Amino acid sequence: MSTSNRTNVAIIGMGTVGAGVARLLIDHGDRTARHAGKTIWLSKAVVRDLNKPRGIDLPAGVLTDSIDEVLDDPSIDVVIQLMGGLSPAREVMLRAMEAGKDIVTANKALLAEHGGELFTRARQLGRSIAFEAAVAGGIPIIANVSQCLSANQILSLEGILNGTSNFIVSQMDEKGVGYDETVKLAQQLGYAEADPAMDVDGTDAAQKLAILSHLAFGATVDWRDIPRSGIDGLDPADLGFAGRLGYRIKLLATARLEDGELELSVGPTLVRKGTPMAEVRDAYNAIRVVGDAVGPVFYHGLGAGQMPTASAVVADVIDMAVGRTPITFQTLEYFSEDRPARAVQRDVAKLRGRYYFRLRVANHPGTLAAITGVLAQHAISISSVIQHEDVACENQNDGGIPTVPLVIMTHEASEGAARLAVEAIEGLDVVDGDVVRMPVRG
Amino acid sequence: MSTSNRTNVAIIGMGTVGAGVARLLIDHGDRTARHAGKTIWLSKAVVRDLNKPRGIDLPAGVLTDSIDEVLDDPSIDVVIQLMGGLSPAREVMLRAMEAGKDIVTANKALLAEHGGELFTRARQLGRSIAFEAAVAGGIPIIANVSQCLSANQILSLEGILNGTSNFIVSQMDEKGVGYDETVKLAQQLGYAEADPAMDVDGTDAAQKLAILSHLAFGATVDWRDIPRSGIDGLDPADLGFAGRLGYRIKLLATARLEDGELELSVGPTLVRKGTPMAEVRDAYNAIRVVGDAVGPVFYHGLGAGQMPTASAVVADVIDMAVGRTPITFQTLEYFSEDRPARAVQRDVAKLRGRYYFRLRVANHPGTLAAITGVLAQHAISISSVIQHEDVACENQNDGGIPTVPLVIMTHEASEGAARLAVEAIEGLDVVDGDVVRMPVRG
Repeated sequence: MSTSNRTNVAIIGMGTVGAGVARLLIDHGDRTARHAGKTIWLSKAVVRDLNKPRGIDLPAGVLTDSIDEVLDDPSIDVVIQLMGGLSPAREVMLRAMEAGKDIVTANKALLAEHGGELFTRARQLGRSIAFEAAVAGGIPIIANVSQCLSANQILSLEGILNGTSNFIVSQMDEKGVGYDETVKLAQQLGYAEADPAMDVDGTDAAQKLAILSHLAFGATVDWRDIPRSGIDGLDPADLGFAGRLGYRIKLLATARLEDGELELSVGPTLVRKGTPMAEVRDAYNAIRVVGDAVGPVFYHGLGAGQMPTASAVVADVIDMAVGRTPITFQTLEYFSEDRPARAVQRDVAKLRGRYYFRLRVANHPGTLAAITGVLAQHAISISSVIQHEDVACENQNDGGIPTVPLVIMTHEASEGAARLAVEAIEGLDVVDGDVVRMPVRG
Repeated sequence: MSTSNRTNVAIIGMGTVGAGVARLLIDHGDRTARHAGKTIWLSKAVVRDLNKPRGIDLPAGVLTDSIDEVLDDPSIDVVIQLMGGLSPAREVMLRAMEAGKDIVTANKALLAEHGGELFTRARQLGRSIAFEAAVAGGIPIIANVSQCLSANQILSLEGILNGTSNFIVSQMDEKGVGYDETVKLAQQLGYAEADPAMDVDGTDAAQKLAILSHLAFGATVDWRDIPRSGIDGLDPADLGFAGRLGYRIKLLATARLEDGELELSVGPTLVRKGTPMAEVRDAYNAIRVVGDAVGPVFYHGLGAGQMPTASAVVADVIDMAVGRTPITFQTLEYFSEDRPARAVQRDVAKLRGRYYFRLRVANHPGTLAAITGVLAQHAISISSVIQHEDVACENQNDGGIPTVPLVIMTHEASEGAARLAVEAIEGLDVVDGDVVRMPVRG
């Protein structure tokens, strides 16, 4: 870190976010200087294609297509690593640290995959990594969990961490349109990628939850080990039934400490209407953290987008330049193998909660008795039932018997019992097809 | 600041919050040490009455009734200043800094009154003051505005900053009971002081807004210059009419940058239902900050209470011990006379917004024409009107003419025009008594 009155930075990767970061650094040097106590100077911006238009005028000599120009320049203190993907992003980050640079990054997938290696190497080299922009964009959740709530044992953390999914679910709920049509709209509006798989299948949220779980609970979690389901293929019928029961469906990422074990999950979840989490619309993110001293703290903001993400990146650059990040990084020893894990992940079957089941059943006497009998055998008690008498909802099963939808909301039960009950219910003659199952909050 | 592996702290003032801070420091030394990278050691706790029960067992030798025992002890690094009121709290803080101690405080009134003097003296002495607990208790808004959102020009900041008022208004709204009865309930439940004047008349919220305005906008504001009204004497009728128009009434503190000038106000405000701010219940606080890069960020949490406030105090102690606070304090130069104000307060008459008016009018032809005529003269256009035909609402004015309530919601107008219009309307023969006027958001 330069101790002079100027911190020189380079951006690697001038996509949407990179251009936003450059704009803040170039157009608003007064505010970064005021907060950093020194000038923050954009020395280089590395791109693959020098001729691609980027909607921003960079001073002469800043733009380059050579990473080496950054790595070989000892005057550059901080590398803003905005390359996506795992490789060569990982190699570039390692080389930059070896060249004596501190790192600010927004690459959540890279941290979720290689966090242990990268943070260990940073400590060996006496360098720091800041990553506020990697989770929830404009919500400064990394700083809040690492610093502002440091007097607390965090008891739970749950959030809407994927804006694309939330946009799709909110639109389906408000407009009553189907999944495929809504994905197309999200793509037209720029809220979804051409291939939105990682967003809608829960991968992105699980990677973010793995990072937050490390910071909040001291757990080292492989995001692949987090039980997850996505909103891909969500049936509008479930949004309608949830609404009638007083709930909305949200793609919720949850981490909860129970008896020293950490319950983790990502999936569509029924959230009670009128709670702040249920009212999160559009592409917004939200996170609710419960600390044993502070109680519940709720954060809501834009989870992605050029300037919200750039805001997080530049705050990290300021914290790095002014010297706060190195203190935090060295003290907390993120992802250190020398620090024993403070919580281990709980076996999925032991998770407990309330559940929503939707199934199609034969419309004749004894059906409800058969199903409630199975639930009783698994010690699952029922809090609400919706059984349609509406003829418009009648289909016929393969045997030609009319079927109707049946919705059951349970009291608290274990995930293990819920799974076994679903299997048994799916095996009943009176049940047609699979059971849709989601957890319920609030 | 001690550079050893231990930071010694003393608490001055062992009321509810002091006991909570002591509990966190004594019972949870592991977590403070993990975040501070060193032991945080409670050396002394100063009380007026050594014999008063405090619900916490302190190690032998910690409790004392002598402030000098703290000030004269060079091993004590940080003084946690939890005395209320202005004097002797101010003198004690000055003496502690002169004795070489850094300060963590929750005393918002002291900072609002004497911030300039105290911060200037701290800088002269090379000391730091941390004050997260002074505003919004469990919501870490000081750190978020000072650090996390540092890449932004903050455009507006509005919040529910007084939990007592919010509890009273929410209860009146939900239960339909009157102001006086609700205040008694709040006192029974411990949400309101025996004399709740400073909470319900807007003073407390104005003091907090003055502090936040300094951090967010670089404005030096005397809280007395903030136009303010309280919820004392709020009429349940207005909650009802607001509800019918799709709004709730909240005691809202607002700071908004317009053309380089800062619009400040504290008062009961109509907030649109379904927005996060309108759904803040009980004694919760909430703050919505809009930054030019990050967009809107919304925070919600407990604004007061023993452990939420202690959480903020202990986070400050950790930040002080680990070295982040001194960096922030020295860089940002809070309340420095050497730093020119970046925004000045706008003349109240220039504020613009939508308004809610409620008045009693004579129930005969021409009344509405007379009133809307006055509004038109002042270039104020109307968005909604509720005029009751309900006989149950009919009263009689002094002249024996039946009167009914009339509610008008306007489109955007200036505060100056709204005031003049209200004066003119109150002078009309068809109008009985004063006009109730509140701003409208959303």
